[in-house]
Formats: sequence, structure tokens, C-alpha cells
Amino acid sequence: MTLLFAAPDLELMAWRTRLAGLAPGRAVVAASEAFDPAAIRYVLSWRHPPGSLTGLPNLKAVFSLGAGVDHLLADPWLPDVPIVRVVDPDLRDRMSEWVVMHALVHLRRLRTYERRQRERLWLDDDTQPKASEVAVGMLGLGALGADAARKLLVLGFRVSGWTATPKTLDGVACFDGPDGLLAMLAGTDMLIALLPLTQATRGILNAALFARLRPGGALGGPILINAGRGGLQVEKDIVAALDSGVLKGASLDVFEREPLPAQSPLWSHPDVYVSPHNAAVSEPGAVAAGIVRQIEAFERGEPLRHVVDRAREY
Amino acid sequence: MTLLFAAPDLELMAWRTRLAGLAPGRAVVAASEAFDPAAIRYVLSWRHPPGSLTGLPNLKAVFSLGAGVDHLLADPWLPDVPIVRVVDPDLRDRMSEWVVMHALVHLRRLRTYERRQRERLWLDDDTQPKASEVAVGMLGLGALGADAARKLLVLGFRVSGWTATPKTLDGVACFDGPDGLLAMLAGTDMLIALLPLTQATRGILNAALFARLRPGGALGGPILINAGRGGLQVEKDIVAALDSGVLKGASLDVFEREPLPAQSPLWSHPDVYVSPHNAAVSEPGAVAAGIVRQIEAFERGEPLRHVVDRAREY
Repeated sequence: MTLLFAAPDLELMAWRTRLAGLAPGRAVVAASEAFDPAAIRYVLSWRHPPGSLTGLPNLKAVFSLGAGVDHLLADPWLPDVPIVRVVDPDLRDRMSEWVVMHALVHLRRLRTYERRQRERLWLDDDTQPKASEVAVGMLGLGALGADAARKLLVLGFRVSGWTATPKTLDGVACFDGPDGLLAMLAGTDMLIALLPLTQATRGILNAALFARLRPGGALGGPILINAGRGGLQVEKDIVAALDSGVLKGASLDVFEREPLPAQSPLWSHPDVYVSPHNAAVSEPGAVAAGIVRQIEAFERGEPLRHVVDRAREY
Repeated sequence: MTLLFAAPDLELMAWRTRLAGLAPGRAVVAASEAFDPAAIRYVLSWRHPPGSLTGLPNLKAVFSLGAGVDHLLADPWLPDVPIVRVVDPDLRDRMSEWVVMHALVHLRRLRTYERRQRERLWLDDDTQPKASEVAVGMLGLGALGADAARKLLVLGFRVSGWTATPKTLDGVACFDGPDGLLAMLAGTDMLIALLPLTQATRGILNAALFARLRPGGALGGPILINAGRGGLQVEKDIVAALDSGVLKGASLDVFEREPLPAQSPLWSHPDVYVSPHNAAVSEPGAVAAGIVRQIEAFERGEPLRHVVDRAREY
């Protein structure tokens, strides 16, 4: 009944306290401690060292401690047990706050008006487009993408969405597959990436894709918003597209390397917002409670929820 | 059947073209031109000079060309005919974009992160509150306030609203009257003013009111957002409240004097957003179409809509 905590970057003591409160009967051991491998039933992982989860004969499931499971699937020796994703309504709501804020900030040209404010310049020479004149294209309509899409619709944006496999969502023009992607991009003014990182999506935000976005448009050029995974984007292509005008602006919360290196030109581009991967931070209490609830249900004989499909990688 | 255009600051030619397209049979004369007073049935006004609408024996109604009618009611010689407000869904949606954007910008501390970006500083030391931890208090739940309230609810904010006379709105804790105002303020983290400017509301955003807001709270102090009318606010009290920490921050689109004088300390306060009265600009085409529709319905015998109650001043 023991839980193995395999998250070298997270604070063991805080998680131990949290789990002790939620599941008093269970031992929690850290990967760095001595423990009996046969006692481990569940692993809680965040970026465990590849190969460190082998030799656990009674392992039932591995729980990711954050959204996204690419860090888990990157382990070629990952045990053949169910991998469970975090699906946290709180994290979803935080993500939508960040996405809607950035959609509005580009729509209403907040940075232009902030610049004018610093110059004490009272000037309104812009014909600002309305949300209803802007076509948002969502890459990904999972728990996060679908919630952001719904909230953007309420604000008046036109919303399309692309998914690997067909999906329908009220009020959203849905596209799928490679041809569907090109069709959606051709009508997109603001591209919002909330995709999982998989072999198919790695580097998808690249020069070839940006070239397919609608030029011009209500915002004067396409906007890229990525709060998914840094591995989705090719940053040298983003910089080149911004410099050439293929992209008009961007809001990026995730990067190929984090922290974003100080020499990256993204920091200083006038129409780029950089945030330190904090669009939606998992609240450890909510994540822990969700995992303990799942374990208890599983031990009552119920199926695990949010299990990763290893073929799809999410 | 003639329309009198009494808006010295607006472009006569553009309005004449617009109205000619919508109502081909009607003459449009400007107050500065020679015309037969007996021919005038309707006035289209934006800040007409007080006293300039007298002596029109066949006048049926005065239409405001912008949201708000305080400019009309300021004329002591205003003819005793119905005064009609602009109620434009487009203007309402633009206003909600601006209000929701600023609510999110304060919630997610965008300016802090922009400052760090300029310093190429990757730092996330803030525990950012969630929208659901923030109590928004709306002053005014008219067409604009109610729409903004609804959209803030979708984003997860807790929303209360205060109106002069009792009102109910789904999901919004409603308060009215002087005691209701104090009760709402005591639980408010973010105060959003979308009130008409009347004798009762002039200067309502003052030191005494700010002192009743909840200190501390999820945002570290109360935020003031005013996109209503500049006359609602006492700017020296806002500056003093910001300096003393009674207010944590503000987003202001309207001012006592516009353009905001260059020497105002509001321009440079680190937690204040200043915009040049462009949160929601009436789209002339939509306003003109609404007025022509109203005139045609009125002449078919239907009642005028959105008529101002002179006692309430809106």
C-alpha cells in the first residue's frame, strides 16, 4: 500500500504532509530513500529519472503530478501499468484566465496603450477590431482547450478548433486531420496552442505552419498564443516570423528551454509577452486529493480515470 | 421630417452620408446651417451648446449620439420631449471586453510580469489568486454592467452588484440603496463602476467610499476600475488612496478632464492603467441605424425605447 514519490524537483516534505492528511494509512517513500520495492503499489511522478521506476513487481499505476505526461513517456523503461494524467478543474480555470487575458490584450492592443501611457500621450488613433471580427483557432480541444474555447465564445470571439481525431463542440467550428489543420489555419487570426506534447506535435509551431495562417486580418497579422508545452514550438521560427511580419505578436508561457535563456530575442520583442510557465500551476492540494480519490476508487474496484493512451501519447 | 444634427464635435459630412443611406427621404441639417425651425422633428445631439435646441415647435424627440445623457441633461433649456439613450449591443460588448481584460490583468498581475520580462527575469514567486477567490463589486447593473457581470461570472469571479433601485440578476449578489452600497463595498476586492453620471453619482468614487472597501483580500488590496464617466471619480482621492495603499491599483478609461492633463500623477502610477476614453466607442453606423429604426417605429405608432427618466437622470 506504499506510495513512491518520484519527483526530485518537488518538495518531499510538503507532499508527505499533504498525503498524510488525505490518506493517513499509507506510507509515502521517496525514490531517494530505502524502501521495499514489493511494497510499492503506486508511483507519483514528476520528471523522475528515466529507468528509476523499474523493479516494482506490485506496481498498479503511475500518477503524473502535473498536467502533461510527456515527461513520463520520455522514460523508455516506463513500467507497463496505467499512466494517469492530472485533470484538475482548478488548473483548467487558471489556464482559461491566462488564455482569455492574452486574447483580449492582443485584441485591445494593451501594450500600445501602455506605451502611450508611459509617454503621457492621450491618443486613440486605432480602429480596434471587435472580438466578433477575430477568428481564434484552437490547437487542441481537450479539457483545457474546450474550456478556453467556451470562454472565448462568451467574450464574442469566433472560435474554431483542431484536434487529431474528430470532435464536436457547441459553437466551435471543428477541424481534424492534416487537411483540417490547413483549412483552419487559413482562416485563423489568433492561434492558441493547448496541445499535449507528443511525437506528432513536437515542433508543430514552426515556419511552415505560420506561413499557413491568414495574413492581415482584423488584428493586422496573426497572433500566436502558446500555453501548452515548450516542445510544441520552434523558437527560432517564431522570432523569424515576428521579424518578417508573418506573425504580428505572441504570448508565450512555455519554452524549448526553461528558464528562457537571457539571450533569447523573445524577451525584448515589442509584441511578445513572456511569462515564466505560470499560466496554470497545479495546486498541489487539489492534485493530491484527486490522486487519493482515484486510488480509493480503484481499490473499490472502479476503473481508473484519465488514463493515458500510450499510442496517442496523451 | 427634418433631422437636426446638433453635435459640433462630430463630423457632419460623415453623419450626413450615413443617415442619407439609412433614411433617404429625410433632410439632415446642421445647427450651424440655415433651416426652418418648424420642419425639425428630431434632434441628434452630442454635446450641443446649452440653449441651442429651443424654438423647435414640432420637435418629437432628442436622440443622444453616444452612451450617457449627462451632456444633454446639463442643458437647462432642454426641450420637454423624450430624450432617447443609445443602447447598442456592439458598444456593450466592447465595454465588456475592456472590463474583463482589466479584471484579468489585475488578477494575474500582468504588469509585474511585464516588468520582469523587460529585465529578462524568469521569476514566479507570486501566489496568484484565482478568479474564484476575488469578489467583484459592480456599481451599476444596466445594459453595460449586467453584461460585464455575466462575463466575469463565466471567468470564475464572484460578482456582486449595486443599483440605486432593487434589481436581480442570475448569479449576482444584488444590493441597493445607501446601506446596500456599504454592505457590498465591505466585501469587495475589485470595484467596477459602470454607472450613469447623475447628481447622485457625481464624485461617488471618493475617499469615503474607498475607505469602505475590504482591505487586504486576495489581490493584496482593492482595485478600482472605472469605464463609466469621469465625473464619477475624484481623482485627487484616487491618487491619495493609491499612495496610502487604501487602493492597490486602478484601471481608468475616463477622467474629470479629458484629455487627462499631462501633469496628472495617474499617468505614472505603477499600478494604474490609463486609457484614452476608448473602452467602448460608439460605432457611428450602428448608432445611426438604431436611431433611424426608432424613428420609423415611432412614426408607425410604436413607443420610443430607451427613453430617459429625467428624475433618475438616465
